[in-house]
Amino acid sequence: MKHYTFINGSVTSPLGFTANGVIAGVKPQNTTKRDLAMIVCEKPCAAAAIFTKNRVRSDTIAVTQQHLQNGTAQAVIVNSGNANACNPDGREKAERMCALAAEALGISADDVIVASTGVIGQVLPIEPIEKGVSALKHILSADGGTNAAEAIMTTDTVKKEWALQLTLGGKTVTIGGIAKGSGMIHINMGTTLSFVTTDAAISAAMLHEALVEAADVSYNMVSVDGDTSTNDMLAVMASGLAGNEEITEKNADYALFLEALTASFRSVAKKLAADGEGATKLVICRVSGAADLQAARTVAKSVVCSSLVKAAMFGADANCGRILCAVGYSGAEVDVQKIDVSYRSAKGEILVCRNGMGLAFDEVHAKEILLEKEIDILIRLGDGEAEAEAYGCDLTYDYVKINGDYRT
Amino acid sequence: MKHYTFINGSVTSPLGFTANGVIAGVKPQNTTKRDLAMIVCEKPCAAAAIFTKNRVRSDTIAVTQQHLQNGTAQAVIVNSGNANACNPDGREKAERMCALAAEALGISADDVIVASTGVIGQVLPIEPIEKGVSALKHILSADGGTNAAEAIMTTDTVKKEWALQLTLGGKTVTIGGIAKGSGMIHINMGTTLSFVTTDAAISAAMLHEALVEAADVSYNMVSVDGDTSTNDMLAVMASGLAGNEEITEKNADYALFLEALTASFRSVAKKLAADGEGATKLVICRVSGAADLQAARTVAKSVVCSSLVKAAMFGADANCGRILCAVGYSGAEVDVQKIDVSYRSAKGEILVCRNGMGLAFDEVHAKEILLEKEIDILIRLGDGEAEAEAYGCDLTYDYVKINGDYRT
Repeated sequence: MKHYTFINGSVTSPLGFTANGVIAGVKPQNTTKRDLAMIVCEKPCAAAAIFTKNRVRSDTIAVTQQHLQNGTAQAVIVNSGNANACNPDGREKAERMCALAAEALGISADDVIVASTGVIGQVLPIEPIEKGVSALKHILSADGGTNAAEAIMTTDTVKKEWALQLTLGGKTVTIGGIAKGSGMIHINMGTTLSFVTTDAAISAAMLHEALVEAADVSYNMVSVDGDTSTNDMLAVMASGLAGNEEITEKNADYALFLEALTASFRSVAKKLAADGEGATKLVICRVSGAADLQAARTVAKSVVCSSLVKAAMFGADANCGRILCAVGYSGAEVDVQKIDVSYRSAKGEILVCRNGMGLAFDEVHAKEILLEKEIDILIRLGDGEAEAEAYGCDLTYDYVKINGDYRT
Repeated sequence: MKHYTFINGSVTSPLGFTANGVIAGVKPQNTTKRDLAMIVCEKPCAAAAIFTKNRVRSDTIAVTQQHLQNGTAQAVIVNSGNANACNPDGREKAERMCALAAEALGISADDVIVASTGVIGQVLPIEPIEKGVSALKHILSADGGTNAAEAIMTTDTVKKEWALQLTLGGKTVTIGGIAKGSGMIHINMGTTLSFVTTDAAISAAMLHEALVEAADVSYNMVSVDGDTSTNDMLAVMASGLAGNEEITEKNADYALFLEALTASFRSVAKKLAADGEGATKLVICRVSGAADLQAARTVAKSVVCSSLVKAAMFGADANCGRILCAVGYSGAEVDVQKIDVSYRSAKGEILVCRNGMGLAFDEVHAKEILLEKEIDILIRLGDGEAEAEAYGCDLTYDYVKINGDYRT
């Protein structure tokens, strides 16, 4: 039974938050696209974040990590169009962005989360951001979440925003968020830029715990192209304005909060994968019967990461060999002789492999199933009871096109 | 100084070997393409092989492993068009192929190496192979290497065959070989089907040592798409007919033999990468200044495996961020502040990153460099003296096209 309800909303749905996004001009060739956003709370929030594991990283990561050391934040400033990574003045520019936001909002620069996304290795122009912040401070509003979601998009084709509600001790708690991510998305990293807000009362320590647990089965199980970014960040701020009893330990309220956070992150994971660069379909690999959780996760990730599986999904080709192959090189210790594989979509389900052996199957029906927009690859390992799912997409001509000349 | 010379030749160039390839009909829809080959020596040979590390593997692997336990082989039988993997009767069919070859040649089935390549999970039809062996036994010849090279091709666009010579103790020693591989090629595996012959006198144990050492810097440093096959095999047979003193330890002759074997394998690695599915160019990542060999190899492999780097190479986009990004997530412990990156081709060399920072550079010249067919990505780490190179290709529309519907 679910203890939460998705609602129409965004990062501004929880009590206390306003936001907006403007065309600041960081993207010089796209002067019709928003490229600077701010998200602000009326009071300092408990805050936590997780980051890319890439050793090459934007200075925004280090600055944000420093600002979150005390578990408190009150605002986010984020630009698209330039990653501010691998630049000689990256640190200075990241700190300048925080100072600009702090000055405009009358808060401490230490309470600002800063993020950037876009081209790596090009100096970030600060003038557009100065002008953008001046404009933003006058238009921050509870309706501005959608504009903020637009402002962090790069190659995304759809904006990602969401909200959901749950009840904690009789109080309505709302969680909202925005995310960007389309390419350079891979497992085991922050994966994307994502900013999450909630009016739940929860300590920074418990917020961090919940963030890590929820990301582990959602953001950390998405792959578009196997590349991981220099700038990934998933940050959450909790205003406490819902008035629930503050969560300071892993009690029943924590479990409910985690359940809702996980559901919202999983919905984002699917959106990120479905909007993968060039993707025409969402591919979810659901592994069951694994000996342990690690094996289930390893197999699921290996399958959604396989270029050959992804190309076959684009071609609606019910190739079972590529699935087995990806299971085989995943590194998980599986008994090949027990593996069953099915494809499933709104058009039905078809078994293509039983006990590790390819089956003859109805190719026409298989094609019909695989021509849908959301495909499940079901793998039953027969080794135990553990389950996992991973989120990916197909590999298409447009992925190559988008990435063949990204900078121009 | 090189101690070997490449010559025009093939797997039949070393003394004692004959081969051929025929249209047996394993590829039912391609009745104009050769799909069955045999390579035979007039006497039993010292033999060794390395295999895929995929847990899901063709029964041909197990049968060949068993036949090579005594370090002796006299013939290879190999088909394309069907991988004989993930089939209920795979073992039986693989053994039947050996028996057919043995009977036709009047040798022991235990001295036959068997391999298959093609679609996974479809039962291998044995009748075409029976007919093919009957035809082959009458046409085995010293000129048949090229036909054998053709017969093992799947999505390859060019056949891969080579030969080179060296002198050991005054005797001319020849090494020859054929290979196939275009997609499902990845590092740290046998990577492909490849059959190598030599007339050197060398023990099976030393042959195995040399094979592993040479493959480690060649076959094991090639990536086309990150997928590894169920059927990879690299096998070598040594007839001893060159009359050199048998190599039974790691002496000077072993060093010369290894040098030549390594050179021949590196030439194949480049051919495999350049003929990667859909590839328009060969991309070699040359890493220098690494703290140790492991770091050099890890970085080089990470860069040639990156989908984003590969797509940028297709688009002739001198993106330095993607290179740094791939270095950063490689897992190698590098000092980002010391990394220099250049692109080089026949049109010149251009530095795009110094000390981990992107540089402004001449975009027109960079484009000119990257429009060539063979690109070097030069990465200087500044951490030490170790070097490595890895071989890859670009990611193109045609990769997607080829793999969108491989089976039809």
